[in-house]
Amino acid sequence: MAVSVDLGARSYTVHFRSLSAVPALMEEAGLQGNRCLLVSDEHVAAHYRTPLERGLTDAGWAVHTVVLPPGEATKSAPHLHDLYDEALEWGIDRDTPLLALGGGVVGDLAGFAAATLLRGLPLVQLPTSLLAQVDASVGGKTAINHAVGKNLIGAFYQPQFVCADPRTLDTLPMDEYTSGMAEVVKHALIGDPDLFADLENHLVPILSYRDREAVASTIEKAVRVKAEIVGADEREEGRRAVLNFGHTFAHALEQVAGYGTFSHGEAVALGMRAGLYLSHRRWPDALPRERIDHVLQAIPVDGDPSSAPFPALYEAMAADKKNRGDSIRFVLLRRLGEAYVTGDVSEAEARQAWAFACSS
Amino acid sequence: MAVSVDLGARSYTVHFRSLSAVPALMEEAGLQGNRCLLVSDEHVAAHYRTPLERGLTDAGWAVHTVVLPPGEATKSAPHLHDLYDEALEWGIDRDTPLLALGGGVVGDLAGFAAATLLRGLPLVQLPTSLLAQVDASVGGKTAINHAVGKNLIGAFYQPQFVCADPRTLDTLPMDEYTSGMAEVVKHALIGDPDLFADLENHLVPILSYRDREAVASTIEKAVRVKAEIVGADEREEGRRAVLNFGHTFAHALEQVAGYGTFSHGEAVALGMRAGLYLSHRRWPDALPRERIDHVLQAIPVDGDPSSAPFPALYEAMAADKKNRGDSIRFVLLRRLGEAYVTGDVSEAEARQAWAFACSS
Repeated sequence: MAVSVDLGARSYTVHFRSLSAVPALMEEAGLQGNRCLLVSDEHVAAHYRTPLERGLTDAGWAVHTVVLPPGEATKSAPHLHDLYDEALEWGIDRDTPLLALGGGVVGDLAGFAAATLLRGLPLVQLPTSLLAQVDASVGGKTAINHAVGKNLIGAFYQPQFVCADPRTLDTLPMDEYTSGMAEVVKHALIGDPDLFADLENHLVPILSYRDREAVASTIEKAVRVKAEIVGADEREEGRRAVLNFGHTFAHALEQVAGYGTFSHGEAVALGMRAGLYLSHRRWPDALPRERIDHVLQAIPVDGDPSSAPFPALYEAMAADKKNRGDSIRFVLLRRLGEAYVTGDVSEAEARQAWAFACSS
Repeated sequence: MAVSVDLGARSYTVHFRSLSAVPALMEEAGLQGNRCLLVSDEHVAAHYRTPLERGLTDAGWAVHTVVLPPGEATKSAPHLHDLYDEALEWGIDRDTPLLALGGGVVGDLAGFAAATLLRGLPLVQLPTSLLAQVDASVGGKTAINHAVGKNLIGAFYQPQFVCADPRTLDTLPMDEYTSGMAEVVKHALIGDPDLFADLENHLVPILSYRDREAVASTIEKAVRVKAEIVGADEREEGRRAVLNFGHTFAHALEQVAGYGTFSHGEAVALGMRAGLYLSHRRWPDALPRERIDHVLQAIPVDGDPSSAPFPALYEAMAADKKNRGDSIRFVLLRRLGEAYVTGDVSEAEARQAWAFACSS
C-alpha cells in the first residue's frame, strides 16, 4: 500500500510498510553515501532503534543515532542546536540522509534540522504515531516552538519518502491514538465522504479495538485526502487552509486551558463540533448534523471544556498566526467532503458554536 | 536597469535603483499588510535607516527596525534567536515583509530568519555592499555560521525582489569593494567573455576610482551571469557549483590563516590564480593565461599568502563540505566564460598551483 504526494520535482511516496523495508526504500529512492543520521526519542527508540540500526548497518550504512527526550518541550531551540552540534561534529555532507523515527515532535524537530543543515539534507520520515502517520509526516511542515507560540519557527521541507509502519500503532497510548483519530475524522469531513461512511459504519472496531484491517484502510484514505490537498497547495497559500477545520477553536482551547490539559485530538474534536454548528447554520440542507456529531462525539474527551471562558478563547483566536488583517478565519463545511475558509463569523455566533461544542 | 532571475513560481527581479524606490517596488511586487520588519547593522543603518523608514512610513507601512552589530560574528545562532524574539514579540503574520538592508552578513542572517519565521515571510534584499549586490543577494542562499564551519545552517530561500542601490557603493571601504570585485571577475571568467573584456579595458576606472557608469554596467553584467546560473540550478545540485571557481583554495586559506587575515576577496583572487594555473595546464590553447592573470593581479592583496603552509591548506580543502566521497572538487576553466567541476587534481599539482598563486 502506498500514496503518492504529487509536488512536481518534490513528489514523494508514503509507504505503509514495516520499518524493516526502510533500507530497501532508501536504495529505491536513490539515497547515496554510506552514512546516515537517525533521530528518535527515548520512548520510540526503546522499541525500534535496535532492529532499524541493524537493518541499516546490514545494508552498508554507518549510522549515528541521536535520542531526544520525549515530549513537546523537545521541540525547542536548545534541542535543535544540540542536534545541529551532534550532526556537524559527527560529520555529514549534503547527501547524508536524516531519518526521523517517532511521532510529531521528532518529525517536526528533526525535519526542521534536515531542512536547515547544510541548507538541506535528504529527509526520511518514519512516523510511529497515528497523528504523525495521517497528518504531520505528510505535507512537509517542520517547526520548533517559541515562547510566543507553537510552530512559529520552521520551514516547508518535503521528505524523500515516508514509511509508516502500521504495527507501530499497536503500542500507542489511548490518548495519542485518539489525537490521530480526530485528524482522520477531519480528513473525512473536509475531503472524503466514503471515508466518513467507513468511520460511521465501523466506529467501534476502529476507535475501540483498533481492528488492524479497518484501521489500515482508514489511514490510507486519510493520507490520500491530505496528499491531495497538499499537492494542490504546497506552501499553504490557499486551499491547504481547509486542513485547519476545527483548529481555530482547538488552538485557542489548548492555549487558554494550558497545553496538556486537553490533548490536541480532544481539542480538535471539540473544535470540529463548533465548526459543525457554524457550518450547519449556513448549509442546513446539505449537512447531516446529527450523523456527523455522532462520529465526533465518539472521540472521547476527558475534562470539561466549558471551564475555558469564552472571552479568553476568542482573544486567543484573534491572535492566531493564520489570521490576515482583522477577521478571525474559520474553516467551515459546505457539505460532507467539502470545506472552505471564511472570515464572516460574528463573536456572538462563535460563542453559540462553542456552547454547542461543550454540550453533550 | 534590472535583471530577472528565472525560477518559475519563485522568479524575481534585481533592480538597480535608489533605495527611495523601495516602497513603490513593494507595491509592484504585491506585498500586502501594513507592517514590515527592517533588519540592518549599525554601520549601514547610520547611513540609510532614516530615509528608508521615512519612505516606508509615508507609504503607509508601520516599520519595526532591528539593528544588529556589524561583522561576521553576527551570523550566529544567538543573534538569529534575538531577531526571532524581536519579530515575534512585535507581532508578525505570514504577509509581513522582512527587508534586509546591508551587506552579506545582514542578507544571510535576515534572509534565514525570513525563511524560517512562520515557515517563511516575504523577503526583500537591499544589498549595500558590492559583494552582496553581485553575489550574496542573488540566488537565495541564506545561512548562519556554526563552530564547525561557516554557513553550515541555512536554507535556499528566494526574495520577492532585490533592490541594489548603486550609490551605496560610494561609501564602501576599499577592502569590501575589492572583495566584491573579485566576485565580478569570477563571474566574467566563468560566464561572460564580454564582461571580461570590459574589465580588461577599464581596469583602472573600475578598480581604482570607481567610475560610476563603468561600475554600474559591470555589476549588471555580473548579476546576469549569476542569475543565469542560479536559474538553471536553484539548489546547487549541478551547474551552480561553477560559482565556486577560486573558492576551494579561498575557503581553505581563510580558515588556515584565520578569518580576517585575508579578506574573502583577496582569498578568492588568490584561489582564482591557482584555478587559472590548473586550467591552463589542461587547456593551454584555449586560455589566455597572461591576460587573465593580469586582471587577477590587479585585485590588491595585502599580506603574504605563502605564509599559510600548503599541507594545512590541503587538509582544509579535503574537509570542505562540498566534497562528495574522497576527492577534492575543483572548478576549472575550459575557456574564457566556461567552467566545469573536476575531482581529478593531484596533491602535487595543487601544490604547484598554490605556488603560482603566491608568485608575483
